[in-house]
Amino acid sequence: MPDRRVDVSVRVRYAETDALGIAYHSNFFVWFEVGRSEYFRAAVGESPAEFFRHYGMPLVEAAARYHNSCRYDDVLIVSTRIGEMRSRSLRFEYEVRRQHDGALLAQGHTTHICTDGDGRPCRMPDWLQTRLQG
Amino acid sequence: MPDRRVDVSVRVRYAETDALGIAYHSNFFVWFEVGRSEYFRAAVGESPAEFFRHYGMPLVEAAARYHNSCRYDDVLIVSTRIGEMRSRSLRFEYEVRRQHDGALLAQGHTTHICTDGDGRPCRMPDWLQTRLQG
Amino acid sequence: MPDRRVDVSVRVRYAETDALGIAYHSNFFVWFEVGRSEYFRAAVGESPAEFFRHYGMPLVEAAARYHNSCRYDDVLIVSTRIGEMRSRSLRFEYEVRRQHDGALLAQGHTTHICTDGDGRPCRMPDWLQTRLQG
Amino acid sequence: MPDRRVDVSVRVRYAETDALGIAYHSNFFVWFEVGRSEYFRAAVGESPAEFFRHYGMPLVEAAARYHNSCRYDDVLIVSTRIGEMRSRSLRFEYEVRRQHDGALLAQGHTTHICTDGDGRPCRMPDWLQTRLQG
Repeated sequence: MPDRRVDVSVRVRYAETDALGIAYHSNFFVWFEVGRSEYFRAAVGESPAEFFRHYGMPLVEAAARYHNSCRYDDVLIVSTRIGEMRSRSLRFEYEVRRQHDGALLAQGHTTHICTDGDGRPCRMPDWLQTRLQG
Repeated sequence: MPDRRVDVSVRVRYAETDALGIAYHSNFFVWFEVGRSEYFRAAVGESPAEFFRHYGMPLVEAAARYHNSCRYDDVLIVSTRIGEMRSRSLRFEYEVRRQHDGALLAQGHTTHICTDGDGRPCRMPDWLQTRLQG
Repeated sequence: MPDRRVDVSVRVRYAETDALGIAYHSNFFVWFEVGRSEYFRAAVGESPAEFFRHYGMPLVEAAARYHNSCRYDDVLIVSTRIGEMRSRSLRFEYEVRRQHDGALLAQGHTTHICTDGDGRPCRMPDWLQTRLQG
Repeated sequence: MPDRRVDVSVRVRYAETDALGIAYHSNFFVWFEVGRSEYFRAAVGESPAEFFRHYGMPLVEAAARYHNSCRYDDVLIVSTRIGEMRSRSLRFEYEVRRQHDGALLAQGHTTHICTDGDGRPCRMPDWLQTRLQG
């Protein structure tokens, strides 16, 4: 089980709040994606934009549990790790905390299958498995 | 177990697509919300905007599994039902299908707790339970 | 000057509101796009998704003036017309009104240049000019 | 005419791209808001969330001209300045450039009126005018 964890900070935008005055829940999935992008950058050592020209990681499952809400201008820390890696799929796990008090806001995961440049499911190459596991 | 099901159609906006040419996954949670709003309208018999002035249904969990992708201008049917109702929480279940061929795009659920007008967790009033169960 | 006007209704989603309790201003540009898509469907007589496989209409300018705000679950009417058409560009004009009281919420426009299937600026074909002008 | 300029960087999210592979145009208005928030932080010296508890700056006009497109993972620099300040309104001006090559992507502005804590239009207090002008 890999134990690399990549953290990235995100500031809540006014556009991301809703009429309750808190960040709308679907934005957490966008922030998970920000975390995942940074994980790829840290693990693969190149821009995720470059990486995704050659491989696909289509998302087949996404889930989140919400513990606390956050508001405009709050700074969040998105922590991303790999929870499970198989030869043809992998699962990222996320935690989102508010920076100033460390409160846990949400936990979630996304599951992805691996595809080649033509979008066909494929076995993840060994070098990629090695790098992602850190 | 209630068996009301409420359907609403949604057309994929260009803004909702991503660089893969398909609808970005977090939009499904927004479409689930569109389905949930229509469920409230059908079940409670008034605008959900009016309803949510008096009760809260904060979302504590959200999940989706993705089966097929969809594209700009596709018409989707979001079907919403209540999967489980407890005295202080309820779970909505969703299916999203493409209208023209009926293909199943995604299934998901959201779990909500009930709160009163001051945002305190509360028991759902009987009349509301009755109406939601249809 | 063409005088076709195409109307489409849009219901404000909770995701589109902000902490002021009103629809966040950038959503109007998405609703303009919804109006523009319906204009193409009405004028060209096919799915805009099909149309945009062969022609591009990249947006080079966008502007809006806001007169009144709207809230969750309000139904809006987006009215779209062509304000100006040149051989290589065109300008769409939009009005957004609240359905239940007719209040004017916003007026705006977007300017687009015409490109061929390879993304190169081109003269708009005569048949397209004719159809768009209605 | 004030000449303070506040820069902030934004990385393009996958969620912000569209089926053309570029950032969807309405996101620039969200990035303008990110720039405006940083302008308030720099000028007023406190969190804009705190500031907006006491004053409102409702947006009455927004416009952008687009010069170049940007893609997933591009880092953008949003530069914000005040273009015009009146006793009851002000206009922010924005430039968005791609960091790695300095290419100008978009220029725009937003116009805001000043309101008090109850949302009534008001004259901007002197101390605020002074701080905003830098």
